[in-house]
Amino acid sequence: MYIARIRVTLRPSILDPQGKAVQHAIASLGAGAVSDVRIGKYIEAKIDAKNEADARRTAEEVCRKLLANPVMEDYSFDIAGTE
Amino acid sequence: MYIARIRVTLRPSILDPQGKAVQHAIASLGAGAVSDVRIGKYIEAKIDAKNEADARRTAEEVCRKLLANPVMEDYSFDIAGTE
Repeated sequence: MYIARIRVTLRPSILDPQGKAVQHAIASLGAGAVSDVRIGKYIEAKIDAKNEADARRTAEEVCRKLLANPVMEDYSFDIAGTE
Repeated sequence: MYIARIRVTLRPSILDPQGKAVQHAIASLGAGAVSDVRIGKYIEAKIDAKNEADARRTAEEVCRKLLANPVMEDYSFDIAGTE
């Protein structure tokens, strides 16, 4: 069993109004100099696979076909073994 | 300048209907045995701080006061140096 930790982020060229809103909220907190806030999705899933390469292939397929919109978003993931 | 990579996830005891929906969609893709899908937020931000401990303190404060709902959510983050 493997755990996939997937991050889906907006491509750098795409505007992120949600990130901008959060950045303004942080500024009004007075919490130091925070800039370039970008908001994405974080997905954790267990993958039942024979080996890590197999788990990686499954995660890649799920990201490509389902989780990320390839026009607007990039994705990356880590695979870790578990019990 | 530091980059904070923040993950905000639902606590394990909180139901995640969005994750369940994604899990069903993955199953109908036929993409291997994927289970326990949980969906959270992923936030990247630049923090202008004198040192890493300072950047870590700012990230901690932003998570605690703004990004995560402590009743329902956990958070974790990494701080990395940049130019």
